[in-house]
Amino acid sequence: MALVNPHGGGALKPLLLEGSALTAEQARARTLPQLKVSSREAGDIIMLGIGGFTPLDGFMTRADWEGVCDGMKMTNGLFWPIPVTLSTDDEAIKAGSDIALADGETGEILATMKVNEQYTIDKAHECMEVYKTTDMEHPGVKMVMAQGKYNLAGAIKVLSTGGFKEKYGEQFMTPAETRAKFQEIGWTRVAAFQTRNPMHRSHEYLAKIAIETMDGVLVHSLLGALKPGDIPAEVRSEAISVLVDNYFAPNTVIQAGYPLDMRYAGPREALLHALFRQNYGCSHLIVGRDHAGVGDFYGPFDAQKIFDEIPKDALETKNMNIDWTFWCNKCGGMASQRTCPHTKDDRILLSGTKVRSMLSEGQDLPVEFSRPEVAKVLQKYYAGLSAEENVKVELKGHSAR
Amino acid sequence: MALVNPHGGGALKPLLLEGSALTAEQARARTLPQLKVSSREAGDIIMLGIGGFTPLDGFMTRADWEGVCDGMKMTNGLFWPIPVTLSTDDEAIKAGSDIALADGETGEILATMKVNEQYTIDKAHECMEVYKTTDMEHPGVKMVMAQGKYNLAGAIKVLSTGGFKEKYGEQFMTPAETRAKFQEIGWTRVAAFQTRNPMHRSHEYLAKIAIETMDGVLVHSLLGALKPGDIPAEVRSEAISVLVDNYFAPNTVIQAGYPLDMRYAGPREALLHALFRQNYGCSHLIVGRDHAGVGDFYGPFDAQKIFDEIPKDALETKNMNIDWTFWCNKCGGMASQRTCPHTKDDRILLSGTKVRSMLSEGQDLPVEFSRPEVAKVLQKYYAGLSAEENVKVELKGHSAR
Repeated sequence: MALVNPHGGGALKPLLLEGSALTAEQARARTLPQLKVSSREAGDIIMLGIGGFTPLDGFMTRADWEGVCDGMKMTNGLFWPIPVTLSTDDEAIKAGSDIALADGETGEILATMKVNEQYTIDKAHECMEVYKTTDMEHPGVKMVMAQGKYNLAGAIKVLSTGGFKEKYGEQFMTPAETRAKFQEIGWTRVAAFQTRNPMHRSHEYLAKIAIETMDGVLVHSLLGALKPGDIPAEVRSEAISVLVDNYFAPNTVIQAGYPLDMRYAGPREALLHALFRQNYGCSHLIVGRDHAGVGDFYGPFDAQKIFDEIPKDALETKNMNIDWTFWCNKCGGMASQRTCPHTKDDRILLSGTKVRSMLSEGQDLPVEFSRPEVAKVLQKYYAGLSAEENVKVELKGHSAR
Repeated sequence: MALVNPHGGGALKPLLLEGSALTAEQARARTLPQLKVSSREAGDIIMLGIGGFTPLDGFMTRADWEGVCDGMKMTNGLFWPIPVTLSTDDEAIKAGSDIALADGETGEILATMKVNEQYTIDKAHECMEVYKTTDMEHPGVKMVMAQGKYNLAGAIKVLSTGGFKEKYGEQFMTPAETRAKFQEIGWTRVAAFQTRNPMHRSHEYLAKIAIETMDGVLVHSLLGALKPGDIPAEVRSEAISVLVDNYFAPNTVIQAGYPLDMRYAGPREALLHALFRQNYGCSHLIVGRDHAGVGDFYGPFDAQKIFDEIPKDALETKNMNIDWTFWCNKCGGMASQRTCPHTKDDRILLSGTKVRSMLSEGQDLPVEFSRPEVAKVLQKYYAGLSAEENVKVELKGHSAR
């Protein structure tokens, strides 16, 4: 048995330069006109840099954008579920321009780009196809609608991982690194558990179902930007570490993170999650309830169903669907709607809002809902927030899952 | 998605005659010399009758016996892990003989056979290859060593299902019937849970892991003969029914039974279990600890490992390996050695002997070990046994798992 192949069937294609090529390109980059990129674009650049978006070599052309929006297919036939695009309002940047792409927040130059196309898109069309809505309340839609007037296509050379390695250390593993790790420890059947939240018992259960029948689980945390009110990556990481240390058997979990921002595109994003997990070497992606969703924009199992609608050979990494999970008093254990015949009244269900308010008031969570060690880490975090911040978190958190 | 194909890739091949062909052959059978068959042979005949041993058309020749013993392969290239043979001490039955095969216990004529070969075998060789031992304490070895001097090969015509349908009613489903049922309810990913015991929580957990990620589970009970001291099929069936009714979600479990005797061949029998589950339409066989084993003749996970040693295309039905399962107090839930990092002291583990003695004394089992509804059914059964029988059950049960 071998690991799944990188997407497209070839080798990993990290666009990050190294050694003297990097030094030379950095020098050249400083001479180029700069384009400040958004947080989402910065995440995509770094992902291209580390090979997570293999086999892309840069930002998409208009034809690819259209093919991806309308049929999840690039002009070369490659399966791709969400446009990876760069935008600007600067009319001066055109086909033929050489530009430097700088982080909009830090100003760091992340990449250089040879622009080969400047084009306009129907943003609402992208939103309808990819996000299934044009509602500005949808944070992914808001990001698309806030893009510049023009999209720019072209290959990029990546010059930096934007501080992720420095900030997250060993946890920021590249696809080559996770693959090397899996090979070293002999894993081939690996389920990725996508997370942007701390893991409570329902998430532990999802991961353990995978561990029961596979070699192990990659708990793969989003390290990029989230909605306001979501718990920062370093707190999540600590909460996950205490869980793994106390409740998982040795050598069954690897914790790592990846640099993207959430798009909250639900089903389409679940496909992207599976696609880049293939690059990281995972054979499966755990797809639970409302995967990558937000508010009520998607049906709770739309992100599972979409895997039945794509061509069988689109992805080597397969979805592992699991229903809504919880503790049930009558079952006397963790269960899901597929395995528990009892009613809502028998189940320990707490909304995100309720959990946040309990934690910020220093209350313990029921042990059937969250491991005490995990709750302690979160209580500490909320205790450190000001009263005002806590209210904000609570209000913002209302529609989040 | 479609169901897995019957073994060999063709259609199901039930050898049971019907209608006027049955009536005519029954009349002819009464005129033929009779061979009384053993309980194991009777089970095999009925399994051939209902198509569970598709694509076999009768008992194996010497060449097939040898190929199966030595390389799990028949002369036509078909994968088969355990010899399906018929024996006699009667020298008068030879190639060319037409005989009737009668149940050794009831005398009912089960089949007719055109003998095309009479041959002798090295029984110890069969035992070493298939059972990995010639120890007469092994019940499968004992059965082989008790066989007649000659094996008889030839195609059979099956005339009866030996009373299983009458005794077990709807629970005795044929492969055609389980397949039709799966198709009716839209199942294609179906895990078979092989059982010859009542289901305690550890077994419930195995089945539920499968249900979490598949369409459903076929709880498939052995209805043939077991070791002395094992619980009769009708009691097991009642205990499983109360479990399913109270603790499984609707439409996730089908309970059925099959007519074979246990051979206790461990790894080789696990392969046979997967093979005939393919005929029943199951995509997976759950393989737990010491599957189809007895005493300490096999390593606890030998029956899982053997699936890695057979050719990839030998079987469409795949193994779903699950480690030793139990309740763990520190986990606060069901777990296995793959998912629980704690120690033996934290786990609720009861030997079969202990469970039997508690039940026969009318004691309750811990709710973490067995569902109260299940324990009640078993208590009632043990209460109905005489004190003497209980002692016997307890002693015999000592080496059983």
